[in-house]
Amino acid sequence: MSIYFDNAATTKVSDKVANIVEKVMKDDFGNPSSLHMAGFDAEKYIKEAKSEIAKILKADDKEIFFTSGGTESNNLALIGAADANKRAGNKVLVSAIEHPSVKTTAKHLEDLGFDVIYLPVDEDGVVKMDALKDAMDDDTILVSVMHVNNEIGSIQPIDEIGEYIKSVNPKVVYHVDAIQSFGKLDVKPKNAKIDLLSVSGHKIHGPKGIGFIYIKNGTKINPIIFGGGQQEAMRSGTENVPGIAGLGVAAKDAYENLEENTKKLTELKDYLIDKLDAMDGVQVNSKKGTDGAPHIVSASFKDVGSEVLLHALEDKGIFVSAGSACSSNKPAISYVLQAINLDEDLLKSTIRFSFNADNTKEEIDETVEALNELLPILKKYVRK
Amino acid sequence: MSIYFDNAATTKVSDKVANIVEKVMKDDFGNPSSLHMAGFDAEKYIKEAKSEIAKILKADDKEIFFTSGGTESNNLALIGAADANKRAGNKVLVSAIEHPSVKTTAKHLEDLGFDVIYLPVDEDGVVKMDALKDAMDDDTILVSVMHVNNEIGSIQPIDEIGEYIKSVNPKVVYHVDAIQSFGKLDVKPKNAKIDLLSVSGHKIHGPKGIGFIYIKNGTKINPIIFGGGQQEAMRSGTENVPGIAGLGVAAKDAYENLEENTKKLTELKDYLIDKLDAMDGVQVNSKKGTDGAPHIVSASFKDVGSEVLLHALEDKGIFVSAGSACSSNKPAISYVLQAINLDEDLLKSTIRFSFNADNTKEEIDETVEALNELLPILKKYVRK
Repeated sequence: MSIYFDNAATTKVSDKVANIVEKVMKDDFGNPSSLHMAGFDAEKYIKEAKSEIAKILKADDKEIFFTSGGTESNNLALIGAADANKRAGNKVLVSAIEHPSVKTTAKHLEDLGFDVIYLPVDEDGVVKMDALKDAMDDDTILVSVMHVNNEIGSIQPIDEIGEYIKSVNPKVVYHVDAIQSFGKLDVKPKNAKIDLLSVSGHKIHGPKGIGFIYIKNGTKINPIIFGGGQQEAMRSGTENVPGIAGLGVAAKDAYENLEENTKKLTELKDYLIDKLDAMDGVQVNSKKGTDGAPHIVSASFKDVGSEVLLHALEDKGIFVSAGSACSSNKPAISYVLQAINLDEDLLKSTIRFSFNADNTKEEIDETVEALNELLPILKKYVRK
Repeated sequence: MSIYFDNAATTKVSDKVANIVEKVMKDDFGNPSSLHMAGFDAEKYIKEAKSEIAKILKADDKEIFFTSGGTESNNLALIGAADANKRAGNKVLVSAIEHPSVKTTAKHLEDLGFDVIYLPVDEDGVVKMDALKDAMDDDTILVSVMHVNNEIGSIQPIDEIGEYIKSVNPKVVYHVDAIQSFGKLDVKPKNAKIDLLSVSGHKIHGPKGIGFIYIKNGTKINPIIFGGGQQEAMRSGTENVPGIAGLGVAAKDAYENLEENTKKLTELKDYLIDKLDAMDGVQVNSKKGTDGAPHIVSASFKDVGSEVLLHALEDKGIFVSAGSACSSNKPAISYVLQAINLDEDLLKSTIRFSFNADNTKEEIDETVEALNELLPILKKYVRK
């Protein structure tokens, strides 16, 4: 039996999700745009999922738009909002530790001529409010901040940020990448004055290839994919109905069990952090309790290469991540770890453990045992 | 039992496809970007599907990129190629009868400042070569033509077009929307000098929410979705592995049985066309035999509203389409039917029947019987 501690990369679909995906694929395969019953039956799944998600967010059904996943949602948010608001200004603020789907898109905005500011974070990986306040000006049209960082699990003060930027200029579009927080934390866009919010299905035991974006009524944003006018022309293309139905079920499940799951995840996290803290030459980069995301533990292992450790753990059936899995398996120095000023010699020695609610303390014990066995051996081979 | 004659809108996934989607979702759910075994196992499905599709197209595996479907493929082709080649010229040629995912994207290119020419078609719905030759000039950077029209099934001379435009300027990017032809006709991009080719999964008994684009090695094209750099950074985002695996199986199935299926579909088509031709006040807008796509029959019913007829047939369990289903169930006058100069009074009286290889002559008999019963009744209610 393997131990899967890479749930921030992707999760296993739940049986419930798999069942509805299968049912819709086989029985209700119509095109929602078709005018007959088969189309109508397919459209019902979309409406249900939308309503389910809207309820969780305390939003309006009409504020939910399905995309092909978190990356597309983030692209739509940044490119679509920048394009729609370019007459009002030219400046875009993002944090320095955004996921590549925001960071690379921000670079693309730079190529288009936008002035992008990358806000620094403190040593805990939290955006410096002073830097944000300095950067905000009349030219600012868009602010994009992630809720939970995917590599270290730091939580951004999205309420405080929303409050501040809207107090300066209510027309600034505020995007929150909630891909690592949705299903783990309470997410209510209106509480934080959020205009755009991105979510991915496969991070919450939903299907791959599906996600959504919350677009607050009245937000100025243009589509980035054009066609038959589906989803109010905000996202054309035949809807991925099985995926949407699966996402609806996954979202509902995550929030019906939110408290219980979060408690369990936090216990696992704190349990692992305590064990790691007790080990020599290990530095934990994530926060215990509610100061960090419940499911992510980043830790640096002095004098051990992260990839070497990853594969040594893999040999024992333990799956973890070196940094994040979202960079197309090309290992590179993590800009997130650099942004939190991690010691130079730990940058290439960092591993991410990420949990789902079905993980157990026994799995952590086994992992710690493996680490205690492996680390002394691996250190021998390090080049000084 | 219902009769599903709306296969150009969407198809039912095959059991084989449903099975592999389920297997990958449940058993091989890893993130292909993860460096461990679970990621590696997931990546294998991508490689297999890519190789399967490349074999069909006689292309290189590296020329296949997965997208969220036909609409995204068409958007990537048009926006990505126009953007990458804008220094070479400003003119884009598309046919007047392109699917909305090309036509609306072409309008977007106009908004961006490109000069878009909509090439007229003849009364059979075939692009006029003379118009293409007139429009081609030094400023032309991109030509996009669909292989099979989704509303009437007309087949475009993609070989002749490719031959011509490349003889004028080999650097012009040639895109073919093969969404309605892939799995029905032989599609070999290199034979027609095609640079970009779009395909959708759910039109060939594959999953919704997945498609691919063929990008000939060396073609100048920029991505439209940015992020973690997956798929050579041409399409970032965690790959929809179950969907990709399903698409690979669907494509393989379609081409293993191509001859047999095409023969069967053509027989069904010709059988229906003969029956319709024999009816009073019915005009068939599609061509028999190999002069048209094997699976699409467009027919106009004098003095009968298409939506009324659609719903009357639906009451008898027969599912057809009024025009195409791809316009987000907003009925509008079809620009395709206008482009082929259909009589004004038939524009709102046109129905599309579209088949899959499991449809039968008995289903057509039943449909014709229903039409014979319904048409006289429905004509009584028409407003003159």
